[in-house]
Amino acid sequence: MSNTTVQSNISGPQYDAWLGYLQGQSGVKGAARKAAPVWSHNVSVAEDQEMISTAIAELTQGLEKLFDIKPKVSHSAASQASESDLTGQEAHGVWLGTWTGSEAVAQAFSDIERSAVHDEGYLIREDKEQGRLFIGSETPQGVLYGTFHLLRELVLDQESSNGVHPAEGRLSYIAEQPVNALRMINQWDNVDGSIERGYAGKSIFYENGEFTRDLGRIRDYARLLASTGLNAISINNVNVHQCESLFLTERFLGDVAKVAAEFRAYGIRLFLSANYASPIEIGGLLTADPLDEQVREWWNIQTAKVYAAIPDFGGYLIKADSENRPGPFTYNRDHADGANMLAEALRPFGGLVIWRCFVYNCKQDWRDRSTDRARAAYDHFKPLDGRFADNVILQIKNGPMDFQVREAVSPLFGAMEQTNQVLEFQITQEYTGQQRHLCYLIPQWKEVLDFDTFAKGPGSEIKRIADGSLYNRPYSGFAAVSNIGADACWTGHPLAQANLYGYGRLAWNPELSSEEIAEEWVRLTFGHDEEVVRLIYGMLLNSLEIYENYTAPLGVGWMVNPEHHYGPNVDGYEYSKWGTYHFADCDGIGVDRTVSSGTGYTSQYHRENAERYESVDSCPDELLLFFHHVPYTHVLHSGKTVIQHIYDTHFAGAEQAASLAENWRQLEGKIDPTVFDKVAKLQAGQAEHAKEWRDMINTYFYRKSGIAEEQGRTIY
Amino acid sequence: MSNTTVQSNISGPQYDAWLGYLQGQSGVKGAARKAAPVWSHNVSVAEDQEMISTAIAELTQGLEKLFDIKPKVSHSAASQASESDLTGQEAHGVWLGTWTGSEAVAQAFSDIERSAVHDEGYLIREDKEQGRLFIGSETPQGVLYGTFHLLRELVLDQESSNGVHPAEGRLSYIAEQPVNALRMINQWDNVDGSIERGYAGKSIFYENGEFTRDLGRIRDYARLLASTGLNAISINNVNVHQCESLFLTERFLGDVAKVAAEFRAYGIRLFLSANYASPIEIGGLLTADPLDEQVREWWNIQTAKVYAAIPDFGGYLIKADSENRPGPFTYNRDHADGANMLAEALRPFGGLVIWRCFVYNCKQDWRDRSTDRARAAYDHFKPLDGRFADNVILQIKNGPMDFQVREAVSPLFGAMEQTNQVLEFQITQEYTGQQRHLCYLIPQWKEVLDFDTFAKGPGSEIKRIADGSLYNRPYSGFAAVSNIGADACWTGHPLAQANLYGYGRLAWNPELSSEEIAEEWVRLTFGHDEEVVRLIYGMLLNSLEIYENYTAPLGVGWMVNPEHHYGPNVDGYEYSKWGTYHFADCDGIGVDRTVSSGTGYTSQYHRENAERYESVDSCPDELLLFFHHVPYTHVLHSGKTVIQHIYDTHFAGAEQAASLAENWRQLEGKIDPTVFDKVAKLQAGQAEHAKEWRDMINTYFYRKSGIAEEQGRTIY
Repeated sequence: MSNTTVQSNISGPQYDAWLGYLQGQSGVKGAARKAAPVWSHNVSVAEDQEMISTAIAELTQGLEKLFDIKPKVSHSAASQASESDLTGQEAHGVWLGTWTGSEAVAQAFSDIERSAVHDEGYLIREDKEQGRLFIGSETPQGVLYGTFHLLRELVLDQESSNGVHPAEGRLSYIAEQPVNALRMINQWDNVDGSIERGYAGKSIFYENGEFTRDLGRIRDYARLLASTGLNAISINNVNVHQCESLFLTERFLGDVAKVAAEFRAYGIRLFLSANYASPIEIGGLLTADPLDEQVREWWNIQTAKVYAAIPDFGGYLIKADSENRPGPFTYNRDHADGANMLAEALRPFGGLVIWRCFVYNCKQDWRDRSTDRARAAYDHFKPLDGRFADNVILQIKNGPMDFQVREAVSPLFGAMEQTNQVLEFQITQEYTGQQRHLCYLIPQWKEVLDFDTFAKGPGSEIKRIADGSLYNRPYSGFAAVSNIGADACWTGHPLAQANLYGYGRLAWNPELSSEEIAEEWVRLTFGHDEEVVRLIYGMLLNSLEIYENYTAPLGVGWMVNPEHHYGPNVDGYEYSKWGTYHFADCDGIGVDRTVSSGTGYTSQYHRENAERYESVDSCPDELLLFFHHVPYTHVLHSGKTVIQHIYDTHFAGAEQAASLAENWRQLEGKIDPTVFDKVAKLQAGQAEHAKEWRDMINTYFYRKSGIAEEQGRTIY
Repeated sequence: MSNTTVQSNISGPQYDAWLGYLQGQSGVKGAARKAAPVWSHNVSVAEDQEMISTAIAELTQGLEKLFDIKPKVSHSAASQASESDLTGQEAHGVWLGTWTGSEAVAQAFSDIERSAVHDEGYLIREDKEQGRLFIGSETPQGVLYGTFHLLRELVLDQESSNGVHPAEGRLSYIAEQPVNALRMINQWDNVDGSIERGYAGKSIFYENGEFTRDLGRIRDYARLLASTGLNAISINNVNVHQCESLFLTERFLGDVAKVAAEFRAYGIRLFLSANYASPIEIGGLLTADPLDEQVREWWNIQTAKVYAAIPDFGGYLIKADSENRPGPFTYNRDHADGANMLAEALRPFGGLVIWRCFVYNCKQDWRDRSTDRARAAYDHFKPLDGRFADNVILQIKNGPMDFQVREAVSPLFGAMEQTNQVLEFQITQEYTGQQRHLCYLIPQWKEVLDFDTFAKGPGSEIKRIADGSLYNRPYSGFAAVSNIGADACWTGHPLAQANLYGYGRLAWNPELSSEEIAEEWVRLTFGHDEEVVRLIYGMLLNSLEIYENYTAPLGVGWMVNPEHHYGPNVDGYEYSKWGTYHFADCDGIGVDRTVSSGTGYTSQYHRENAERYESVDSCPDELLLFFHHVPYTHVLHSGKTVIQHIYDTHFAGAEQAASLAENWRQLEGKIDPTVFDKVAKLQAGQAEHAKEWRDMINTYFYRKSGIAEEQGRTIY
């Protein structure tokens, strides 16, 4: 086992992200650091297993960076912490391994302790007196997660600029079990090197129609993901074009296998987005009918080929009958027919079908007010509950529309008790500033997770559906669209790394708070200068509300430029086929989704929520225009009229965006200058752009309503 | 002189355009045709000159197609119509040539007759008794134009389906003199093969960064242009990119020269759009300052190289300091400095600088209501009157904005008496339906030409400024952006050929009426079935008003989707930097361009027009919103309110668009099926799209104004 550096590629404060281990951070000088723990000089391992090797390499690299030491790695077949081993110098050290692979590790924990975790869960025990630390798990993957956890605690345990240890004493005993089984990332990368909704440069996976040769960068991405606890990835866009359809064939399977190997080393299982029409487009058949024997046979054979190349292949992610993608509707079959056909092909190998529920009519007539895009997923999938095979999982977006800064939660959660489900978030900031605006998304996701569906009475939160516990489903978890690209800092905006980090942490444990995650990420990334921590932490936690303030009001969503979705355009989707309207006229605004007078969408929720949303009196302000069409003079629970709320939030939002830029400028000299300059420029741009949002929205509604702003502020 | 076919490329009813000579047209069967005139069997020529050879080839080909004969061409050094020549069989025939080159031709006309035409003008005399026809001119170019004129008359003189000869008796004596000296076409083709604002396929000039090898298609284009009387062409986009800048260099000059040769054969002089920053971008200098000696020298030398390759090169067309293109402003110089520098380089060779006046602030702040894009050209150029060199011509768009279906005429016409000017039209239908909607533009251009500027009192029409007569300017004329591409019918929409044809005819003679041109074009293109003529003629002449009806109302313009400019988007440019607004609010709409309360733009017109536009009472309805912001309830001269006018015209326009499609469907079986199908599909599309326009505009204004439609028709 060598002590070589794990990270293989570019380096530097942006690229290292939260795995920089305080290297080069001004807040914590090398001199001011805690001394290396006694156990940190020796690492003992008994197993020859790839992920455990990864864990060792990560551990030694992390310890080196943190303490400027060179830990010695001992490898023995038995690796028992026998009396002879544990005498003298050798008695101090880290032991890591699985229960079955390392007796020393197994013995460090009691039966009861060990039984509290399983599979990817892990235990850590620090014995300060003896100078020993143990990381143990049922699986190598758990050992790797435990290792990353240890390193995180060591960073957080460093002395901060005001003398406090943020993680003091937390290390002595840790027991962790991931809440969600599937913790997945979706890449929307195309083989031409572009990324759909990518705001951080080109793909790190592909260039010019081929797989990249830079597997090192992919490995660096794998370690970032694994360090947060993620365990699955689909590596190509859900809109699968002709060329990517060939990923299932000899043309590309060798390349896919190489990428799978990089992720495997970090315990991440690889999935592919597949083209539903593959039997036609690459198989030469005349149909893709899911009940056609030839079609089923084609999928069976092709899937067997995939598993021959990648024995631990995860399965297929499918976007079918959605936004002009092919699907079973063409053959008068339903989504269950389509998904089950693929499930049959994958079952012999333990593979999964992840079937997206983002199905709606994208050729709607804007004149037709009865068709409601928000209804679509529920209307399509609810009737199919119980018909999906056991290894099919439906992937459901957090809201019924499309990742708006504010929308209702999807009523499909809590509607399908006999169906596996994963919850889909969007880390890439398609509608939330495209990584040119700061928008820390964890608070939004927390709201979704904590939303009570009342599906089985109070306490039926979405997080309990996502984790499978509410309906006791075999497969469940989180999926999210990645926000990374070939950009030097991965995410375009350096602070957007917090969303990737936070997603992984939340997928592991949805009980973590937005605040905890934010502080963790800031300290890991920027160190423990308390002024730095305070300012960045504050920026993150305020950013979502700020973004919401200066963009579309009161849950109505959209108001962006079509296609690229950046920048204000109040009527951008108002007369479009995409089904996304605000219906503003000279009297009022909003979409009537009530049963009594609107599209009836509210009926898709369980009674408690349905009633709350149905009534304009009980509907929460922030979703009022999502559910109701009201006059501009309607008075909110806040006491303001709708129109004045629009004016006020937009004036406030632009001011707040300016203050974000000011806050950041106070950090000059306290953080890496490259990062400082990059973010300073982005925040200045956001402040300017927020004014554009403010003025366009305010002017639009002032011109339309003719109602003056109460305080006489400038509206054009 | 061989009798070979001139046209070298694709053939067929769409490709032949108006030069099909009734081939394959169902309205006029071969059997029903007039017999070939006695003189048509012999063609006599005395001169060995390229354009006269072209004329002979065109004449023989045309006669062959029309009469199914093989004219005999006699070539003699003297070609005198001596007694011996003119006896017997040989006494019948066509003689064509210049006064100095062909004595027979010269003698066929009296001194007085000959003195009535000069340069490109020509005379034609048919002597029916003797069976002789003479085409004569001062120049070979004139002979070529006369030849095309003869052929046109012969087609028009064929018996129509109801027994009438549309051109009966018109041939006996013709004297024609072009009104405008410069009759130019601007290609907006890029060397990558794309065409800016092109709606008829790729470029016929370039593909993939190189000049095309298909010079035959270019020659076919040259003959189409020459047949209408056009005599100049610029072959690359006015937005000159890096690659096209190299057209002035050895890299491409050989290619340019080959293209110039094709046009030369048809009397068309070739120009290039040049990049103002060429000295930097391709010359390696550090500046493009027009007063810098090195820069001037660079242009002198480079221009000499161009003339070495193309001795009759026309000159440079320049878009400078416009829409992010470089220009003299960078060096604190003005447009006269910039243009005169180029003029100096071109003067020794008789070349011209054509300098576009499309200069305005395209980074305007929509919040600023005082800046008015309409003012820009006048504000920039009026102060420079008298400062431009003699071989500089300003190219001025017909209106102050950008080729809208309806806008005021440019006040720059009539403002610069000491400056050469050409009038720029846009044949390509950027804002008028992009050759997917039918829009016969000649009536629009006629209105511009007939507009009285009052610059020198009544009778100072724009056509008299464009032709140079009002101010007795040495250089003047027409320019227009081409609408052709590699499409099989040249223009995307087969009926859009009428705009190219009509532009050439109008450039030759602005007194021709829209009706004359339409009938001519229909008969030349579709033959003389009177039902066919009646229907297509009616479609053409109604099309502009129909298009205006269902698009932006009352002269306010725009309301299109940004960038590509197709389809309705009322607020598409409302909050943009392009300076193109309607300022609609819940009370009213329009741009106040008056002196008394608005941008003061009206003051750029001479008093008669300024007063007419300044007053809301005298401002013509069709331009009301271009000049005034008025309440929706304002009553037009028509007696309707503005809002009801919007509703009425949009309901009417969509119905009229549907009737265009119905009219066309009546032609099934009467014209070439390929053309029929293509147009039928396009007209059906237009009818659908017109409904989208109707509903979006009506809904927008109904929602904004809250004023109901009087007749209770459906608004969404």
